[in-house]
Amino acid sequence: MLKIPSVETLVHDLCQLPGIGPKTAQRLAYMILKTKGYSKKLRNSLEQVEQRVHDCPECFNFTDNDIVCYFCADPKRSSRLLCVVEEPSDIDRIEGSGAFHGRYHVLHGSLSPLEGIGPEDLKIAQLLDRIRRSKEGDDPIEEVILALDPDLEGDTTVLYLVEELSSLDVRISRIAHGVPLGSDIDYIDNRTLGRALENRVEL
Amino acid sequence: MLKIPSVETLVHDLCQLPGIGPKTAQRLAYMILKTKGYSKKLRNSLEQVEQRVHDCPECFNFTDNDIVCYFCADPKRSSRLLCVVEEPSDIDRIEGSGAFHGRYHVLHGSLSPLEGIGPEDLKIAQLLDRIRRSKEGDDPIEEVILALDPDLEGDTTVLYLVEELSSLDVRISRIAHGVPLGSDIDYIDNRTLGRALENRVEL
Repeated sequence: MLKIPSVETLVHDLCQLPGIGPKTAQRLAYMILKTKGYSKKLRNSLEQVEQRVHDCPECFNFTDNDIVCYFCADPKRSSRLLCVVEEPSDIDRIEGSGAFHGRYHVLHGSLSPLEGIGPEDLKIAQLLDRIRRSKEGDDPIEEVILALDPDLEGDTTVLYLVEELSSLDVRISRIAHGVPLGSDIDYIDNRTLGRALENRVEL
Repeated sequence: MLKIPSVETLVHDLCQLPGIGPKTAQRLAYMILKTKGYSKKLRNSLEQVEQRVHDCPECFNFTDNDIVCYFCADPKRSSRLLCVVEEPSDIDRIEGSGAFHGRYHVLHGSLSPLEGIGPEDLKIAQLLDRIRRSKEGDDPIEEVILALDPDLEGDTTVLYLVEELSSLDVRISRIAHGVPLGSDIDYIDNRTLGRALENRVEL
């Protein structure tokens, strides 16, 4: 509707960002047009990210460190605890909780037979290999915490991983699912409440 | 919080877009990282916009046409009616109404003594000049419709323009302000309702 082809292309590209609809994309495009130097700055940031960011060879988190990522390089974190997540963004959420001080492993997705995503599409072989290698060192991995989404794909992945990990002499746990803090039981769905009752904690 | 400096710079830049907070910017950055080729495509679109888009020399709308913009070049639009708007994005809104088929003139802002924006910062001299020039041609501008925002700055700009335009032999009008269609009078603020009563239309 803008009758400016190059701006329409930009709006179309911005629309592909999550949560950005055509109206918002148009507002963003106008802001980009009006703010001197912003477009160039954004292009430069994008180029830096393209050139520098790569998967950490140890945990497959994103990093722009030369070798391993911030979390793998931190000597203060325990190498005996390994938290397996689906996406790099999940690490940020878990760090926000302040309740975990071990290492991470990013699968880059979850098993989904419907979408044709099998074990070989995820970093599962690398996870098993990493645990095996750790067993030969001074600081073997003792517990693997599965922090996967509580949906069909996450549950499938958990089942698969439990089987694969069973021969590796590690404790396997999954983060607890139940009623979120600060919520009202009146508003909680049946399945979550069912799970919270099943997994009740003795006091 | 991501511990990846180049990604943090990108998040910081994205945060400057209107309506994008730190959380959303992080989600956008992760999507950019995960979607192969997207970052390059977006950089290319931004570069195209930087290189091609300029102000139309006639109406000061954004355009990437070689000479005048889409609306100035359209021979089917009436040159006798001129609609003055604050921003290029306002043109899109007015086009959406389907109620206007004349030409546009973009001021690129509104008068704001508090922010130090005076007449010389807007395309007002160019507007007066454009009307004067039209008077010498076959298709003189007969009516100037002021479609400026109904706020302090818009009202100030309207007052200033009415004075400047008074000597130019053009009809001057301002778009109507009142109760929006589909709304409920119960929820309309006092000033809007007062204006709607003042500007009541005889049936």
